[in-house]
Amino acid sequence: MEPVERLPRHFQDELELLKTRLLEMGGLAEENVRLAVQGLVDRNRSGIERVLTGDDPVNRLHVEIDGRCFTLLALFQPMAADLRTIVAAVKINTDLERVGDLAVNIAQAAARYATHPPVKKLIDIPLMAEIAQNMLRDALDAFVRRDVDLAQHVLDEDDRLDALKTQIFRELLTYMLQDPATIEPALDLILVSRHLERIGDHATNIAEDVIFIVSARDVRHPGAQGGART
Amino acid sequence: MEPVERLPRHFQDELELLKTRLLEMGGLAEENVRLAVQGLVDRNRSGIERVLTGDDPVNRLHVEIDGRCFTLLALFQPMAADLRTIVAAVKINTDLERVGDLAVNIAQAAARYATHPPVKKLIDIPLMAEIAQNMLRDALDAFVRRDVDLAQHVLDEDDRLDALKTQIFRELLTYMLQDPATIEPALDLILVSRHLERIGDHATNIAEDVIFIVSARDVRHPGAQGGART
Repeated sequence: MEPVERLPRHFQDELELLKTRLLEMGGLAEENVRLAVQGLVDRNRSGIERVLTGDDPVNRLHVEIDGRCFTLLALFQPMAADLRTIVAAVKINTDLERVGDLAVNIAQAAARYATHPPVKKLIDIPLMAEIAQNMLRDALDAFVRRDVDLAQHVLDEDDRLDALKTQIFRELLTYMLQDPATIEPALDLILVSRHLERIGDHATNIAEDVIFIVSARDVRHPGAQGGART
Repeated sequence: MEPVERLPRHFQDELELLKTRLLEMGGLAEENVRLAVQGLVDRNRSGIERVLTGDDPVNRLHVEIDGRCFTLLALFQPMAADLRTIVAAVKINTDLERVGDLAVNIAQAAARYATHPPVKKLIDIPLMAEIAQNMLRDALDAFVRRDVDLAQHVLDEDDRLDALKTQIFRELLTYMLQDPATIEPALDLILVSRHLERIGDHATNIAEDVIFIVSARDVRHPGAQGGART
């Protein structure tokens, strides 16, 4: 899988730095998700406010990492696994930026939710958040360590997230049908569960990229393998 | 903006082919969005079914286009504007695949919606769909023609989509509060409006990529321009 001619040491250092910055960005995005969901559960305005006003560092990293990818492609013209890693980094960077956006969306819903009496004790939403955060962390670890088994584990976890989302929807629908006063806040909880599901989707995207980098095997569309990808 | 040394003719042909395939994929994704929304409005099961079972061509193109981008990067090691164009193509390919997924999500909501009596005559949702489809088409045209003004127009249209989404939400909330029988179908309409908003977001991503390709100017995060991007 490795290119026959290794690129200069300088390239490997830069590639390591790129990975470090992606991990850093993932850490920031994940922390914002955690804060937003914590703010929803605790009805903690200051935590929510921190997420609403604090996505600049994620956005700065997004621009910086994109720049690093371009520089690496332009200066070193890497081949094979190195090329796949950098193109994957471009995609992962986009995924992580969206996770940062979704943390803001969750915080927005949490801010609205806090203006209503609570619909119910929140148990499944923090559980969804925990699963989604773990998926994200595992997917990035799998990327850095080129760990296909861990990437596959991330793909498997997505089903749990999907099942929880469906369960949350059904439960909240029951509340809404019984008491119209719960309609508005329950809608925000439904939205939060969908934002968390999408965070899981982004982790899944990253895991699929990892499998492609390591094995040059595309697992994204079973049955659509007639493409030019090799 | 053009690289000083032009890459061989073969490269330019391949780049044109890549653009053609992206347009083709955009056309397929857009057609699926149109069919799904039409199915929602007309309660037309066969149209909905076509979208639910028909995203294979989009997925095949997704894999093929990714392969073309890799091949172009590996074989020709393009620089400057050509490099930016291919990296943008990788991202646009991801955006278009998500639009295809969102068309399926809309069709799923349409299938559920058709099992309930209609909540209201649908006017704003088809309007949102029309705006989102135009944004997508314009963004891809802007990419192919390197048209920054058209890309900027796409960015401006996103506000209209956002305003319509908010308006639809408020209106449907009123229905839900007045008549619990509308809660379930109204929820699906709210979801559809959010899927359409996200299609607009993907068009916006593409438009931002176009501005970056042509002007090497990053318009994504005003105020986050301390990055390494040049």
